[in-house]
Amino acid sequence: MCPLYYIRKEDFTRILDAELPSIKQTQIFSVLARINTLYMIARAGSGHIGSSFSSMEIFAWVYLNVLREGDVFFSSKGHDAPGLYSVLIGRGLLEYENIHKLRRLGGLPGHPDIGTPGIVANTGSLGMGVSKAKGMVLANQLDGRQGQVYMLAGDGELQEGQFWESLLSAANRKLDQITVIVDHNKIQSDTWIKDVSDLGDLESKFKSYGWHFQRCNGNSLESLEKAINVAKTIKGKPQVILADTVKGCGVSFMESTSIPEGEVFYKYHSGAPSPEQYESATKELINKADALLKEVGMQPLNITMVEREVVVAPKGKVQKLIAAYEKALLEVGSRRTNLVVQDADLMIDCGLLSFKNSYPQRFFECGIAEQDMISQAGALALKGKLPVSHSFACFLAPRANEQIYNNASEKSKCIYVGSLAGLLPAGPGHSHQSVRDISALRGMPGLLMLEPCCEKEVAMVLDYAVDTNPNSTYIRLVSIPYEIPFVLPSDYGLKEGEGICLTEGHDAVIFAYGPVMVSEAYKAAKILESDHGFGLKVVNLPWLNAVNLEWLDATIGSINEVYALDNHLLSGGQGEIIGNAIARLALPRKVDFVQFGLTEIPECGQNQEILMYYRLDSVGLVSRILEG
Amino acid sequence: MCPLYYIRKEDFTRILDAELPSIKQTQIFSVLARINTLYMIARAGSGHIGSSFSSMEIFAWVYLNVLREGDVFFSSKGHDAPGLYSVLIGRGLLEYENIHKLRRLGGLPGHPDIGTPGIVANTGSLGMGVSKAKGMVLANQLDGRQGQVYMLAGDGELQEGQFWESLLSAANRKLDQITVIVDHNKIQSDTWIKDVSDLGDLESKFKSYGWHFQRCNGNSLESLEKAINVAKTIKGKPQVILADTVKGCGVSFMESTSIPEGEVFYKYHSGAPSPEQYESATKELINKADALLKEVGMQPLNITMVEREVVVAPKGKVQKLIAAYEKALLEVGSRRTNLVVQDADLMIDCGLLSFKNSYPQRFFECGIAEQDMISQAGALALKGKLPVSHSFACFLAPRANEQIYNNASEKSKCIYVGSLAGLLPAGPGHSHQSVRDISALRGMPGLLMLEPCCEKEVAMVLDYAVDTNPNSTYIRLVSIPYEIPFVLPSDYGLKEGEGICLTEGHDAVIFAYGPVMVSEAYKAAKILESDHGFGLKVVNLPWLNAVNLEWLDATIGSINEVYALDNHLLSGGQGEIIGNAIARLALPRKVDFVQFGLTEIPECGQNQEILMYYRLDSVGLVSRILEG
Repeated sequence: MCPLYYIRKEDFTRILDAELPSIKQTQIFSVLARINTLYMIARAGSGHIGSSFSSMEIFAWVYLNVLREGDVFFSSKGHDAPGLYSVLIGRGLLEYENIHKLRRLGGLPGHPDIGTPGIVANTGSLGMGVSKAKGMVLANQLDGRQGQVYMLAGDGELQEGQFWESLLSAANRKLDQITVIVDHNKIQSDTWIKDVSDLGDLESKFKSYGWHFQRCNGNSLESLEKAINVAKTIKGKPQVILADTVKGCGVSFMESTSIPEGEVFYKYHSGAPSPEQYESATKELINKADALLKEVGMQPLNITMVEREVVVAPKGKVQKLIAAYEKALLEVGSRRTNLVVQDADLMIDCGLLSFKNSYPQRFFECGIAEQDMISQAGALALKGKLPVSHSFACFLAPRANEQIYNNASEKSKCIYVGSLAGLLPAGPGHSHQSVRDISALRGMPGLLMLEPCCEKEVAMVLDYAVDTNPNSTYIRLVSIPYEIPFVLPSDYGLKEGEGICLTEGHDAVIFAYGPVMVSEAYKAAKILESDHGFGLKVVNLPWLNAVNLEWLDATIGSINEVYALDNHLLSGGQGEIIGNAIARLALPRKVDFVQFGLTEIPECGQNQEILMYYRLDSVGLVSRILEG
Repeated sequence: MCPLYYIRKEDFTRILDAELPSIKQTQIFSVLARINTLYMIARAGSGHIGSSFSSMEIFAWVYLNVLREGDVFFSSKGHDAPGLYSVLIGRGLLEYENIHKLRRLGGLPGHPDIGTPGIVANTGSLGMGVSKAKGMVLANQLDGRQGQVYMLAGDGELQEGQFWESLLSAANRKLDQITVIVDHNKIQSDTWIKDVSDLGDLESKFKSYGWHFQRCNGNSLESLEKAINVAKTIKGKPQVILADTVKGCGVSFMESTSIPEGEVFYKYHSGAPSPEQYESATKELINKADALLKEVGMQPLNITMVEREVVVAPKGKVQKLIAAYEKALLEVGSRRTNLVVQDADLMIDCGLLSFKNSYPQRFFECGIAEQDMISQAGALALKGKLPVSHSFACFLAPRANEQIYNNASEKSKCIYVGSLAGLLPAGPGHSHQSVRDISALRGMPGLLMLEPCCEKEVAMVLDYAVDTNPNSTYIRLVSIPYEIPFVLPSDYGLKEGEGICLTEGHDAVIFAYGPVMVSEAYKAAKILESDHGFGLKVVNLPWLNAVNLEWLDATIGSINEVYALDNHLLSGGQGEIIGNAIARLALPRKVDFVQFGLTEIPECGQNQEILMYYRLDSVGLVSRILEG
């Protein structure tokens, strides 16, 4: 009993066709686009409401009233994708049926990708927008093309160094073809920007970089119109419009201004609304739209209702590695007083809240500034601290790559923890699916890499990094709760480069790591055994870049069929290391070695859908193994 | 007949012991330190005179008059290492004998490393200094320690985003324990900063970040004293002192102010002076010192003279890959009008001058801003251009790692060229020895990686990237001129994943790439053949991440001893890929596979010295292969 509501194409068309003043037309359009944004997120089960809504008037005004032939608009922050899609769909720039396909395979990716009509640049980690805008304008100049580039940046994004790095040459080259609009909703992923890493005086900052600066109300179409019109008149300078907005704008109880006194976190940054929240928000928006339509003498909306797809809950016990990590971190924090924790605006997602609350002096919130965070970690380590630095794996490994190496060159001990690792969740899309972090960190001398496969192994891995390993460690964590069908032996202990057999089997052996892949391999082994009488030995090998050759030799034994299963690209993943180790074993017989994993930048979709698509689910593995 | 001169310890001691006014004492000390700096660089055959000299008064004043118990000083730019060492040695903080060991194994690294007494932070690529200073101060705060952190930044370094990223939290946390001095000599690696990427109004920039700002004359001790004294009084704000300096200050003809009208490049940024330049500069400094000593009634200097070690020139024909690349780039530029070239302040070292002069409209100087450069490249590619982006491999691969992946996610075609690749030159030290770039870029789907082994192959590789490969390419270039003992067959052509045999041999096969390693392997094969009757098949395999299995099988043939030789860390290098491929071949016999390369962050030293140290020279390879 969870109905979902959306606005049909016809309603957008009649509003766009109506002879209405631009402001009124765009205002109505924005409310409709918000209804569909909510629909898309609720249907997908995830997405970012807060910044889709804070940006809505900007999207709507730009697409309905600003863009002319040769102009482009793109968003650099990416979280606002549902809002952007909704506007593109309402405006007819993106096939209407996509409204039902947010975060689905072959549909609309969780974050923008140029494979989608109307999208002109991919987002990645934050801060790339001005650089991309410059590239577009320089290409236009070379080809004698006209056209304004409108780029929407988040305000949290302004903590990234690349943003400021990129401002200089835009001003030096007098690129007045660039207009940056900052969605200044004042709340980043975790909480208020001022509490994470205050941006200070943005007006003087932008002006000091030689940019033309304006400030406006980004949820007021009148104010936006005025600011954009002024920007158009500026010659010889790129322009920035700091658009003050309200996160969640348009639905009273989702608006950041409605956060009660004393509450720290904003609830609608990411994730789907509850059925009650959804119902209430949509009703409010429909009423608002109908009132506006009535004002201009138009018929009320013709809402379509559908039932929400019921998500089947997993049957077995679901394990949550982030929660286990949160607990383990608190425990090591209590006994290791030199341990300090760093975060880059993902304290909830990375499981840091308990530590922060218990040891606020030893918790450092660094904001969206991974490079800065990791260089600080190195200095903290040289001064006797044991820094544990956190972000999503997709941001930490590439963005702070040079800084991690620089720390390695000082031979200090640091612990890096990358969560949201691997192919899943697949909903956010390739910017968040971290499938090359192992590869990116492979060449760091002295950096041991570990990934736990279940809650129990999480604490073991963290303890190993803190207490046993004298050098630095990278801990890779899968964030999604996962149903774990296996149990680690009670006497299991970590031994560098050695794994643990979870099933016996003499026909083939498969090496895997992490909850998703070990579980899928384990389930595959059960199917192979029961349905095909095929014995697959499943080995959990949590060491991502260390394989003990003797142990490997003994584990393979007389088996001639060896598989390696990566939650990562084949290139640079664990499987490659296992293959290399097999070559070094110089076995005096033919041993077939096959790697399973990814070979391309992954598609976005639902978790099971994507796992099946890449034939990395248990059923896919079974058939691939039987294919030989 | 190239005499070198240095100041003995006793001369420093008598000046430090003399009852002189601080300013006068430091002034004399600075001149002496300059003489020894020049000695160290001339003896090493390389080093950075320009910024060692522009910073000299800052070093001298800080070490003689400012630092108190608990205070630290470090340089973030690193180029100034010879000047810094000279001051540390003169001040007695670093063992005197090190004066003879710049850029030598076991001596003083080309860029600062904490293994050297008196050095408290390693440099890497630029822009990490403030982050490190913050880490130090936060650790001090946690432990209740006092102490000021003085950090010297270069002005070119202010183009790096991390620098600005790191300013925010220093101000938000009110870290008045940080004093940044900017050596504002106005010339970066290539030329004037204003012509590379103008920094604009630095005063308003720093102030907008909430820092206390002062400007002073950084080559005037009086002015420096005053500014540092003011900084000490500032509470609740980190402070920056923009110290206007003259690059090459102290030697009339090396001073940037002496660059003739119309000349673009500054000659003394890096490299050793000619014997005539050295003689003339040293004489000028000695005369200045003696005059100052006379002024205060002290005896003239007691100069020590030694003969310069004569560097033995290679006997055979030396090939220069960068020069070959410059020519090849000009050629493809002439026939591919959509090709654009990007540089990050290394246009001379990367061989871009000919292209820039011929096609100034298609040349984009991006400054020391690799992230910004690569994101611009992606946008240029989406707009129909073929961007060829340049930097040293050690900066390009890690610093723009995320941006390269983001471009890969857009499936646009980009060409990335990393020069100064590999272990050599070993003089600059680990920050510049790029031995993990292959690894860092391994997991980029659709990125082909190629390294040419000689001048002839350079053009082939670039042509392949431009004309044949539909996807993106990383071209890895060794920068040092190298004596090439082999000749590629005249009918040799590139075929993806396949190499070329340079010697016949049936006892073992070795795979290598690039001029250094292929040459050493080739020489090793000749020694093995003539001295030991051992047949080593040497294969040049320019494909760093692609091996054709059939070709590999045929190339190995019936040989049971396979070697892979990396100019890179073993981890993530080509050898690992070859090993993995051998495992996938599933040969029905025992094949010994051994990798040669690096397993640790490399040491600094002279090229041959370091190659021998790691047993990667032909003689080392011979003995390792005979060891089996």
